[in-house]
Order: sequence, then structure tokens, then C-alpha cells
Amino acid sequence: MSFEVTILGSGAAIPTQRRNPTSQYIVCNDRHILIDCGEGTQMQIRKYGVKFQRINHILISHLHGDHFFGLVGLISTMHLMGRDKGLSIYGPEELEQILRLQLEVGAAKLDFEINFVKLNGKDSGVIFEDKLIEISYFPLKHRIPTNGFVIREKVKERRLNPLKIEGSGLQFEHMHRLKKGEDILLENGKTLKNNKYTLDPHPSFSYAYCSDTAYAEKIVSYIQGVSLLYHEATFIEKDIERARATFHSTARQAAEIAKKAGVGKLIVGHLSARYESTSDHLHEAMQVFENSEVVEDGRTYQVS
Amino acid sequence: MSFEVTILGSGAAIPTQRRNPTSQYIVCNDRHILIDCGEGTQMQIRKYGVKFQRINHILISHLHGDHFFGLVGLISTMHLMGRDKGLSIYGPEELEQILRLQLEVGAAKLDFEINFVKLNGKDSGVIFEDKLIEISYFPLKHRIPTNGFVIREKVKERRLNPLKIEGSGLQFEHMHRLKKGEDILLENGKTLKNNKYTLDPHPSFSYAYCSDTAYAEKIVSYIQGVSLLYHEATFIEKDIERARATFHSTARQAAEIAKKAGVGKLIVGHLSARYESTSDHLHEAMQVFENSEVVEDGRTYQVS
Repeated sequence: MSFEVTILGSGAAIPTQRRNPTSQYIVCNDRHILIDCGEGTQMQIRKYGVKFQRINHILISHLHGDHFFGLVGLISTMHLMGRDKGLSIYGPEELEQILRLQLEVGAAKLDFEINFVKLNGKDSGVIFEDKLIEISYFPLKHRIPTNGFVIREKVKERRLNPLKIEGSGLQFEHMHRLKKGEDILLENGKTLKNNKYTLDPHPSFSYAYCSDTAYAEKIVSYIQGVSLLYHEATFIEKDIERARATFHSTARQAAEIAKKAGVGKLIVGHLSARYESTSDHLHEAMQVFENSEVVEDGRTYQVS
Repeated sequence: MSFEVTILGSGAAIPTQRRNPTSQYIVCNDRHILIDCGEGTQMQIRKYGVKFQRINHILISHLHGDHFFGLVGLISTMHLMGRDKGLSIYGPEELEQILRLQLEVGAAKLDFEINFVKLNGKDSGVIFEDKLIEISYFPLKHRIPTNGFVIREKVKERRLNPLKIEGSGLQFEHMHRLKKGEDILLENGKTLKNNKYTLDPHPSFSYAYCSDTAYAEKIVSYIQGVSLLYHEATFIEKDIERARATFHSTARQAAEIAKKAGVGKLIVGHLSARYESTSDHLHEAMQVFENSEVVEDGRTYQVS
């Protein structure tokens, strides 16, 4: 089981040679998730060796082009390469019409179903869960309706304590129930106390994605204590007026949110093309929240 | 004055590391034209150093995604980088709705006008002309309505013969009229014969673009005698059944068209991702039409 985030694009509205428009590929316990899909994402997927037919969930934060212009191309290529298994897309309502219109004019009939889940940019809640993971969304603060996302591992099973299990005569059925946290009442009336035979589960990790957004403290409650936070930092403090005017954040503001939410680690991206170096972003973030990093396209971050 | 074609993308439906989806940048006598705009074209424009705010005309052949999915991103970036001069887009009717819908959902209000010229994929004619160039379109044979394009230099002015002009006492006004091909009747009743004072104009060159299309002899009349022909060659002869089924051409068929049309030079592209090498394409084309070349992304071809 692994939980990691690969940055496919970390630029802002205008792509540069170094930073593609926004997209991230997340693997969480063998679930394969794409967040946002700026133009060129399918080329980045190929460049960084992602097997894109594995992707089953695509989350689109909002309808600024640098976050979704690559989606129709990715879907077309999935189709041309023979995909037949369904794909769930979560995003603003108008996205479905945009996709269907573009596929229709090319007379493309997909061989797979798209399950389109509409997000309105105001509410919050769980949009997907199974036995191992849960994906939820919540509103950010941007010029148009925009969602953030949290991907969480569910609480894992308790672990059998090998020192106690060996030679105990426990049956397979008992072990299964112990992992679930149950005590076992034997036929002879004796009780096997769970805490004697098991150890606490491995910790469950979580990842939060906040882009694009102005500084907004309302975010904090949704991302409280996540292991890894990606928060946009389009600007630095000297350009804070520009950040305010465009509903983006500075690196310091991203770090303030990370600190208030008590996250494990902060990574910042969506850097404006105006900055040639990342050192100001890094310095600003680390002054407020030390465990900060500026992302680069192609880097993979462990969620742990 | 120059006339050249830069290949920004020469792949087919599925992009590869080596070949981006279709796009070409043409400079003809200081007119800057883009033909087709597959996903990632704006990154290719940047990579190959094209100054994209100079582009005034964008021609879209048809609405298969690999020919237009990059257009909305390019237009957005032109806007974000401060464009205020108008842009003419020539393409199928539905393209306008697709563009406007995507810009609207992002609440983007462009600071420049788009002059949208609808092409129906059935007719032919001139879509743009000024004193130096002329652009015309004509129908190709594909699964959906598709246009080819010809860009021609207009007939150039006659050149003054320096050996005759020097010391002749000709006035500036006379020279201007001589370049237009006129004889000059002087006040003293004497006539200056044009062919004594001028040389023939430099030749006028022309470029034709045919992609995507099945083999179609009807094309020949529209591209007769062009200096340079780009014709798609998605396949080679061993895959001719696939070419027929998908309304594409083989390299041999592209060369047959070049030969029948008596063009100066043939370049072929839109190569399927299934071919690792271009040598079969080249060999096949050259057997029918010797002055053939297989294009590569980033190459510039002189139209001469």
C-alpha cells in the first residue's frame, strides 16, 4: 500500500517551459486519482511514466482553463487506446456540457461510461468512499466557484501481535475478528481481550489540495491535521495586492493556513510565471511553517 | 520577405514524446498564420521561439481533437499576455460555440475581438487576401467535414533594371508605374516601353495543406503546381486497409497526389504513433515522388 502525489503541472495561468498547467496524480492504496487537468496533462502523464488507464477518478477544482483544458484530450486518448472501464469525473456542472460538445463535433463515441458528479462550489461532503479511502470536497475562495479536496486513508485494521499469536492456538476466524478490534468470547466462557493480542493500526494518512484560492480561514476546518497539504502560492508578499485582486494566495498565506490547520507538511505550487526563482516562496513559507517545500513538475511526494 | 512553414506538431490522434498533435506556423510576407492547433500548441510555440502575438490568422481544418484542442488555451494565453489586436479564426461553425462556452465558464472576457469565419467543409474559395497574399480553402475527404488550405503569394511587382535606370532621368513617379507593368507616355510624345526598363518579377510561391484526408483526386485541382505541399501520411501501404477505414492516407498516396498536382516539393506528416521509424514513409513517398520529406516537430521548411 502506498500513498503518494506526483506533480504533473505546477504552473499558473500561463504555462512556462519549466511548469505545465496544474495537474496532480495521486495513488492512495491502489486507487488512482487525477486532480485537475490543465492543457498538456496527457503529455506529462506520458513523460513521467504514469499508466493513465489506471486512473478511475478525476477531480476538477474549477473552470479556469489552466485546470481543465487538458481533460478532453486525455479522455480522447483513453478512448483511442481502448479503454472500456468507466471513469468518474467530479467537477462543476458546466464541465459535462463542454466535454460532450467537443466529443460530439468530432463524432467520437466513447467505449466507456463517464459518471459525472456535479460539485457546486458551495457545499462540502464525501464524494467517494470504499473500504480503504475516502475523498471529500469543500469550497475554496476564488473568482469563480472552486473546490478543494481531501483524500484520506480510512482507519486501518488493528495488527496481530506476532509475539502473542505464535503458539496461542487462535483460529483464523478469531484473528479476523481481532483485527476488527473485537474481543473474542470462547465456548469455554473465557474471553480473549483484544488489546492483549493486537497492536494499534498503522496510522492513516491524508492529503489536502487547495488550489486556486485566496487566503481563507474557513478552509482550516476542512483540512485540520492532514498529513500533507498542497496549497497554492501564486504570489509572494511583495505582490500581495495582486494576490488579493485575483483571489490567489502568497506563500506566507499558504503557510499561515498550514500552521492553523496543524498539517504535517506543506507543499506550495501554482507559481506565477513572473518568478524566475522559487527561493522567495520557500523562504516566506518556511518563516511561518518550517516543514514547507516548493513543488516542481515531475516530483513525487510521499503522504506519510 | 520570407515564406516558411514551421512544424509545431506532426503526430496523429495520440501524441507521443516525439510528435505533438497537429499545428503549423506559417510566415508569408510578414503575415503570420497558424494552421490547426492541437493540444500543447502554445507550449510548442514557446519551445520553438515563435512570437505568438504576431499570429493574426488561425485556420482550423476540422474538429477532431488533435487539430483544435489547444486553441482555447492559446487564446487564453494571448489574452493573459495583454493582446488587444483582433484575431481571425477560420473553421467549422461549431468551433465558435466551443470556444465561447469555455471562455464564459471561466468568466474570461477577452480584450480583443475574434472575427470568426465559418467554413462548411463543402465549398471552396478565398477566405483572406491583401496586397501580398491570398488564403483559400477547399474540401478534403475525411470522416467529418474537413478543409484544406492554400496560401499564395500574389504576383509580385516587376523589378526595375538597374542597368537601364541609371542615368535615364526617369522620375520617381515613372518608376512606380513601371513596376506595375505600365508603359509611360511622356509629354514629348515619346513612349518608354516597360519591357526595356524592367525585369520579370521574382516568382510567387505557394503552400498547400492537406490534413486530414483519404486519398482524393479531387484535391489535385485545388493545389495544382504549388511550390510546397504538406499532405498527411498517417499510414504506409501495408496498413492501407486501416487508412481506408479511417479516411486517412498512406505515404504512397500522398506522393501520388503530389505527382498528379505537379508540386515542387512534398512534405508528409500526421504519422500514426504505431511507427517507430520514418524510413518506410520516406521510401514509399520517394518511389512515387522523389522530392519528398517526412517532417519533424520543430523543423522549418522554406516555401520556394
